[in-house]
Order: sequence, then C-alpha cells, then structure tokens
Amino acid sequence: MKIALDAMGGDHAPAHPVAAAIQALARFPQITRLILVGDEEKIRTELAKHGAEPNDRLHLFPTTQVIAMTDGAVEAVRRKKDSSLCRAVDLVKEGAVDAIVSAGNTGALVAAATIKLRNLPGVDRAGLACPMPSRNGVWILLDAGASVDARPEHLLAYGCMGSIYAHHILGIAKPRVGLLCNGTEEGKGNELTRQSYELLKSAPVHFIGNVEGHGLFEGAADVVACDGFVGNITLKTAEALAKSTFKWIKEEITSNPIRMAGALLARGAFQSIKKKTNADEYGGALLLGVNGICVKAHGSSSVHALFNSLRVACEAVTQQVNPHIVEALAQKPSSPTS
Amino acid sequence: MKIALDAMGGDHAPAHPVAAAIQALARFPQITRLILVGDEEKIRTELAKHGAEPNDRLHLFPTTQVIAMTDGAVEAVRRKKDSSLCRAVDLVKEGAVDAIVSAGNTGALVAAATIKLRNLPGVDRAGLACPMPSRNGVWILLDAGASVDARPEHLLAYGCMGSIYAHHILGIAKPRVGLLCNGTEEGKGNELTRQSYELLKSAPVHFIGNVEGHGLFEGAADVVACDGFVGNITLKTAEALAKSTFKWIKEEITSNPIRMAGALLARGAFQSIKKKTNADEYGGALLLGVNGICVKAHGSSSVHALFNSLRVACEAVTQQVNPHIVEALAQKPSSPTS
Repeated sequence: MKIALDAMGGDHAPAHPVAAAIQALARFPQITRLILVGDEEKIRTELAKHGAEPNDRLHLFPTTQVIAMTDGAVEAVRRKKDSSLCRAVDLVKEGAVDAIVSAGNTGALVAAATIKLRNLPGVDRAGLACPMPSRNGVWILLDAGASVDARPEHLLAYGCMGSIYAHHILGIAKPRVGLLCNGTEEGKGNELTRQSYELLKSAPVHFIGNVEGHGLFEGAADVVACDGFVGNITLKTAEALAKSTFKWIKEEITSNPIRMAGALLARGAFQSIKKKTNADEYGGALLLGVNGICVKAHGSSSVHALFNSLRVACEAVTQQVNPHIVEALAQKPSSPTS
Repeated sequence: MKIALDAMGGDHAPAHPVAAAIQALARFPQITRLILVGDEEKIRTELAKHGAEPNDRLHLFPTTQVIAMTDGAVEAVRRKKDSSLCRAVDLVKEGAVDAIVSAGNTGALVAAATIKLRNLPGVDRAGLACPMPSRNGVWILLDAGASVDARPEHLLAYGCMGSIYAHHILGIAKPRVGLLCNGTEEGKGNELTRQSYELLKSAPVHFIGNVEGHGLFEGAADVVACDGFVGNITLKTAEALAKSTFKWIKEEITSNPIRMAGALLARGAFQSIKKKTNADEYGGALLLGVNGICVKAHGSSSVHALFNSLRVACEAVTQQVNPHIVEALAQKPSSPTS
C-alpha cells in the first residue's frame, strides 16, 4: 500500500515525520511507497541525518506552503493549495496513495478531507476516532474533536462507525457501544444525548446505553460516542491528568534519595503504566466518515507516535474500514431527524 | 454555627455521616450544633458504635423517608416530604441551621434547594462548584453537574460565583476565570461557549479566556466555567483516570517482589500524589447560587470525604460566600440574552 505523510505537520516537523517514515518502512513491508510531502530541502536535510535519501519505497513530494497550527481551518485549505497537508490529501483524492497521516492543524485536516474527499455515502459528518486506554485494552472515543456541534444523527453515525473500527481494527467480536453521559440511567443527559439514545437503541450496533466518566478506563464500553466538543475536552482532560500525575509522582520521588532508590526497583511498574496511559502508543485518531483513510496524529507527536499513526493507517487500509462503514450505514434505519 | 447533615444520604449511610459528624464536632469548635437528619433508630445504633449519643452540640432530627440515588429528582422532592434530604433543606429554609451537607441524590438536592431556598437575587441557575487538584493547589470547576443544559448567562454567573468562591474560600487575591473549551484561541468552542466568552469579557472578573483540558491540572485557571453536562463528564473522567492509574500501578507493582520492595521505599511519593488526586480530600461541591449553603458530597463518600464536606460548609458560612455573590452579581452588566 501507499501512504502520504505530511512532513511539515506538527510541532516537530519535519524531523519527527521523517524519522517515523524511516522506522515505518523498516517495520512494515506492506508499505510499498511512503511519500513525504513538504519542503524538499528541509526533508532532504532530515533524511541525510539518518544517512537516507529518496528511493523506490521512500518518495518525496515537494510543496511550498505550510498550514500553521493557528491558521483558520477552512480558509487555510482554500488559500494554501500548495501546503503539505492539502497536497497530501490531494494524493488520496487522486488515488496516488491509500492513506494520509498528518500531525498538522486538526481543523484544516478535517476541512481538507471533507472538501476534497467528501463524506462516505450515508455519512453526514466525519468524526475523529481516538483510541484510549482501559484496564485490559483499548476503547474508542469519537468524535474526539472533528466538529464542535453535533445532531443526534451524527452521534448515531459515530456509534456505528466506531463499532466497525472496534470490530475490524481492534478485533472485538461484538463491540459494546455507549453514549458518553453524566449518568448511566436512561433519561439522563442533555437534549442531544437523550435524542441520540433513542436512535442508537434501534441501530445495528450492540448499544449498551449511557456510560459515564467513572467507567471509561475500566472497560465500560468499547466505543464511546459523543459530540466533538465534549470528546475533545474528555480526551485532553484524560491526557493532561495522566501526564500531570506521573510528573507529580516524579517530583515527589526525586525529592528524596530513599524514594529514588525505591522507584528504581519499581520502575518497571511505572514504565508499564506510563506506556499504557501515553497517547503516543495509540497512534493518532482515524477520521471516520470521509472517503479516504486519514489519520490525525497529535500536534506534539513524538517519532514513536507518528510511527504508530502510520501503523493505524496500514491497519485501516488492510481491514477495509471504509467499505465496511458504507455497508453498515446502508443497513441503518433512517432517523426521524435526518 | 449550626449545620444539618443528611444522615441517610450516600452509599454508606448512616455509618459514614455519623462517623464524620463525630469527627467534625471534635475538630471544629465553631460548629455549635450539628443536626443528624434521618432514621432515628439507625442513627442511634451508629452513634452507639462510637460510644456517642445526642448531646448539646449533636442533635438528632428524626425523619421517616429516604430519597434513593435512583429516584427522579423533582418527583422525589415533591413526594418524599419527610425524607432526610428534604427535611435537612427545610432546616436551612427555616433558619434553624446555617448550612446543609448531603451525600445523597445530586438532582434531588439541587431540586430541593432550588424549590425550597430559591436562588439568590441575580442568579438564574445554581451551579455545583467542585474543587479539583492542580500542580500547586486547587481550582474550581463549575457547573460540575447541577443542570445539564445551560445558556450563556448561566456560564457568566458560574464564572462570577466561582471567582467569589476562589477569592473568599481559597484565598486567591485575583482568581483567573477561564471557560472550558476545545482550544484556547478566541473563536474556538461551540455556540454556547462562544456566546459565553463575549459575556465574560465584560464581566467584573479576571477573565483569561478559553482553557482546554491540557492546562487544567497545571494551574491554567483558578475557576473553570462550563455547562453541567460537560462539567460532570470532566469531573468523572478525571476522578476515574486518577483512580485507574493508581490501581494499575498497584497491580503492576504487586506482580513482582522486587517492585514491591521498591514501592515500599517510595511509598511516601505515592501517598502524597494519591492524596492530591483523591476527591475525598476536597470535600464535596458547594451549590452556588441558592439562598443557603448546600454542600454536595460524593455518593460514595468516605468518612474523611464527609468530614471535609463539613469543613467546606463551615468555610462557606464563615466567609459569607452568599452575601458576596449577591453583591458581585448586582455589579454584573446585564447580558443581552437575559
């Protein structure tokens, strides 16, 4: 398969994307071509640091513009046609690649993908499906922030698309789909979630009702649907607390030599849980619902995070997530509001 | 001061409320009377376990009904007039006590307080102000779940009331008020937060704009305003992740004797951070905006959590939070939508 990587996207571009590309090519033989899209000179300089240069499997697609993290999404896509992000999406549109990975501006990626690739048949609004840690594995939060407002039929589609992700990529036989809410009882929630509850009840998914924050990390559901505003806050709150907790523990430990000695003996435990709660391990969010595979990596992605994002892109292509979504949504009973 | 404690509220009632009452009376001489409201026989039995009985400072107010955690809020308040929760609120209304603490049904407490005590002048909707941990102290999240839907003028009032809480109870000279959002830039957010942003800009508080999950636990703001749906999910997500992280670390540690030895040496560090991230330490949420001091403790409150909730009630009474709110809201420029 062929993948385009936005080499200028993210806080550490092009260094991290270039390093991740080299790692991914070494690890994933199924990638027959990986195209680094961006500033040619800068990319060649980064490649040289690894003693690498473009070859049969590693291509370079030169572009002249970069979309900044602070650029307005739709305007940036319209104005910066030769940006690495837009050109990478164009490559998907033209069929030159099977997937794109970008750590760039989330809004711009969503806008470019929606405008250029269009939504899949039956999908009104794309959602970012973000893998999150639980006790014994991974659950999917979506929408993690593709759009801020949502209607009940969007949450219905998020539940359906998330179920397909969990089934085909995570290998869960019958994914349990929940609705993120302020309580588990039916009837809890705001107007949006109460209406979405009714739609999900008759959807072709294993809907288990409302789930609240308390159960998320203990595996209450495999897929958790919510609007992008709530999802983004939930995602960032969880990431932030995990990071702060480890930072605070480290500060407490380094304040005392006996504690430091102890921590050294117990470090395997910390490393294991730090890894579990580290967003880098999960490899970015898949933008579900657009007609093409788009993976959004964190803006601050490490090389490892980008490597894992390339892995997610490979899995989504191999598992044919999009054809499965189209098929499943064709079965969806039409909602009263759509 | 006099405080009513709902002895039947919460998962461990009346055992935990009774034990917390005894501890609080020993610790807080300013409590001249603490009234345990609930099933007389059960309360006496619990008191006996501590070798205690009603006395000059510890009173008993017998009631015959209990509002269950699963009861519908408004209906429970209308139907169960002789419930411990309703009678405790009645005591505030009649002026027999200065404050009420309950670990019971959140919705019922909010409904009882709103119906019986009414809102303070200038307040449309009460909000639960929940203390949360940050790097160097505490910040206030509100609304943490008093109501699920909110209008911009409600978020404006939450910001103002939270600022007064932070100033008078947390002792912060000029509390920084932020709006919980999916990004920090002005213009980010959903319709509710974008409109609220405009109102808060001209409010008599130190408004610092949007804050996102990433900054919350590193002290990005002293007060974080949001609607109760988002607030409740944020609160529960944070509580859940903190709990799960420590559980996972413990499981990893106990899987290996060398790690266990190390953890023993470093245990001070864990205990310190576990305490910091433990909701029990913060003592429940103050229902800001009603004409009376109402503290909502967690349904699963430990004795220590209820003890801390009684402390919060004492502080709110001593610091005259409600008169300060009335005064501040009288200065608030009228909003275009109210």
